[in-house]
This record gives sequence, C-alpha cells and structure tokens, in this order.
Amino acid sequence: MSEIKKTSRTSLSRAKQRGSYDRETIYSILDSTPVCQVGFIRNGHPAVLPMAYGRLNNKIYLHGAEESPFLKDIAASETLCISVFILDGLVFARSAFHHSMNFRSAVMYGKAEKMVSDEEKIRGLKALTDRILPGRWENVRLPTSAELKQTMVLAFPVEEASAKIRSGGPLDSPSDMDFPVWAGTVPVKMQASSPVTDRESKIPAPENMNEIFTADRNL
Amino acid sequence: MSEIKKTSRTSLSRAKQRGSYDRETIYSILDSTPVCQVGFIRNGHPAVLPMAYGRLNNKIYLHGAEESPFLKDIAASETLCISVFILDGLVFARSAFHHSMNFRSAVMYGKAEKMVSDEEKIRGLKALTDRILPGRWENVRLPTSAELKQTMVLAFPVEEASAKIRSGGPLDSPSDMDFPVWAGTVPVKMQASSPVTDRESKIPAPENMNEIFTADRNL
Repeated sequence: MSEIKKTSRTSLSRAKQRGSYDRETIYSILDSTPVCQVGFIRNGHPAVLPMAYGRLNNKIYLHGAEESPFLKDIAASETLCISVFILDGLVFARSAFHHSMNFRSAVMYGKAEKMVSDEEKIRGLKALTDRILPGRWENVRLPTSAELKQTMVLAFPVEEASAKIRSGGPLDSPSDMDFPVWAGTVPVKMQASSPVTDRESKIPAPENMNEIFTADRNL
Repeated sequence: MSEIKKTSRTSLSRAKQRGSYDRETIYSILDSTPVCQVGFIRNGHPAVLPMAYGRLNNKIYLHGAEESPFLKDIAASETLCISVFILDGLVFARSAFHHSMNFRSAVMYGKAEKMVSDEEKIRGLKALTDRILPGRWENVRLPTSAELKQTMVLAFPVEEASAKIRSGGPLDSPSDMDFPVWAGTVPVKMQASSPVTDRESKIPAPENMNEIFTADRNL
C-alpha cells in the first residue's frame, strides 16, 4: 500500500469514507476500463473528450492524430483533469432519496507530456494495445515511421489522484424499512460477446480473447 | 429528424462522417447510459465529475447534495461540457495503427439551471429515478420537503450538442490484408445480472426489472 498525497483538488468533500488515496486501488480502477474522460480548458470554456488509454507503472498513455486540434490543445494544457468511472450496480432503496449506484471511480490532475522519440511513442502505443488484449502488440503489423509521425502519444502522470468507491446495498432510514417496495441491488458489468471475425480474414480468433474480461481486467 | 445547429464547439474536427447533429440520434445515445461526465472550470483548472442523469424532452436533469461544493460550482458555471460515452466494441485490425473501438458518444455545452420549486425538483428527480427503472417513482417512498431541501436539482438544455458514432469492423490498408493475424471485432455491452434483494426486504423483485437492459434502454 502506498498512499498518494492528497491535494485540495483530490480531497473528497463529501462521503469521505468512500475515498481512497491508495496507489494500488487507483491503479486497479484504471486497469478495469479502457476509456477515460479528459477534461481541459479550450478557448476559455471547459471541454471533455473520451479517450482510450493504457497504463504503464505511474503513467497513463493517451494517443490520437498528430493533426487533431483537440489533441494539440490537450498536449498544450497546463492542467488536465482525467476522470474514470465504472458502473458496478444500481441500488434501489425504499425511499426515492436513497437510490444510488455502486461504482468505482478515479480522478487525476496533471500535465501530459508529449512523447518525442519513436521508442517513447512505441512504449505508449504498446501499453494502449496490450491493455485491450495482452500480447496483441507482438502479433500485429507494427507501426511504420510514417504512422508514428502521424500519431501523437501523451504520457500523463498518476501522481495527483484519488479514488471513490461505493458498494453494497441500499442505506434506507430505519423508519422506511417497512415501506412496501422491493429494495436491493442490480449488479451490472461490461461483458464481451463472441468475437466477430472480419469477413476478409481467414485466421481464427486467438484463444486468449476471453482474457479481455477476466476478473481483474474487467473493462 | 430534426437537426441541431452546429457551433464551433460541437463541429467535429476529424472523422466528420462519424458525426451527427440529429436530435433523435443524440437523445437515443443519452437514453442508453445513466451516467455522464460533467466538465467545468474550478478555481481556474478543469474538473470532471461523473454524475447520474435522466432526460426529459430537451433537458438533462442532474442532482446532488445542496451542500456539495462541486454541485455549487457546477450550478454557478457559465458553461458546462457534458460528455457521454458508450463502448460498443473493441476493433482488432491487422496493423497496430488501425486498432479502434466501436462507440456511441455525445457532447453538449450549456448552462445548467437550478430548479427552485418543489414541483420542478420533483420533475427532475422522477426523470432520474424512472430512467433507471420505468415506474419506480410511483412505488417508492417519495421525498419529504426536508429531503427536497437537501437536494439540488439542475436542468441542462440539450441544445448545443453533437454525437459521434463508430461501428463496423477494422479498416486496414489493402496492403495489410494478408498479414497473418486475426482481425475482427469483440462486441461489448453493459449487462445486468439477477437482482440481489436487500437482506431486510421481504418483497420480491418487480417483474419489470429486466427492462433496465432492453434493446433501447441499453445502459
């Protein structure tokens, strides 16, 4: 367990018992979904962009087209706020007031660093690709130098971060416990269905395809 | 089909063929997930907060504790950027470069309006509750005036908005088509499992619980 130092931006203002600043907890949330939402300031207004990512140690790698105006603004931003949210369940209470959701979320603040060398870019792109399917990078046609030139890769430090987690059933007031309505939880989860092979492909799907959704790689 | 007027903020800068400004398309994406990411500016830096929401006509309703400093800042923000992202599939190409995701996303800009009267607040809370399970509001213990006082309800207009959608298989270059690696798509979807009844509840789960995930209420 290593604690990440709290800052005024990452300190929970409410339901503090649901917060965590433990690095392993934050990493495990980051490793459970492949898409984050990147918040930045654009021409004076807030902007939020969903982006794929992969984690390697204390870095999150983002990528996109070198020519994308959004990517350029993200790379130039002094501060980004990156938010990750995984829905784990819907919580039905007796009272409307206590309806809730079970979730794991993480929020991070920091500045992204633009990767310059091909070696750095490849490290990030491999993390992004293998995050989706372990070992994929070894089997695909690797990027040409023209493709690398077209691709912006950013490394974002997981250093100013916190997690928030809710789990369990409804928390109704004692006076509502006999209200005549069902109360409980509906667990929800991202699930993959069988791979659909491209119609021009003659190669069967790899066997480790189900690793996309093993327990600790929950998407 | 009614088109929403494009603005410089909602015009797609890349992959424009994947964009849509059709109101019904945007509504159908908004109705397919219960959580959005709300971007705003806080003390000069970007902030992103995951929030539950429910849609009623051209309004998205958000809620939270009246005393939440985050909610207060969101309510006071001149402009919010709200982002919704639904992952539909992982796309495996022959080349690393053409790996992709299938998704439906929407982005909206605007100012949230704070609901003042109990009637307005209840309209929003009902939209939030019934979005998760149709008819739930009619069956639960409704909010007391003390609970309404503790709850901030915000209405956000879906007026400056666009959608972006990717579907289908990998789009490899012709020269890569014979590269010896599997290519195709793994569809993914949020799925609910059986309701878990609260241990102190003696009432069975309602029959319409499976409506949480029917085709057009995809979460």
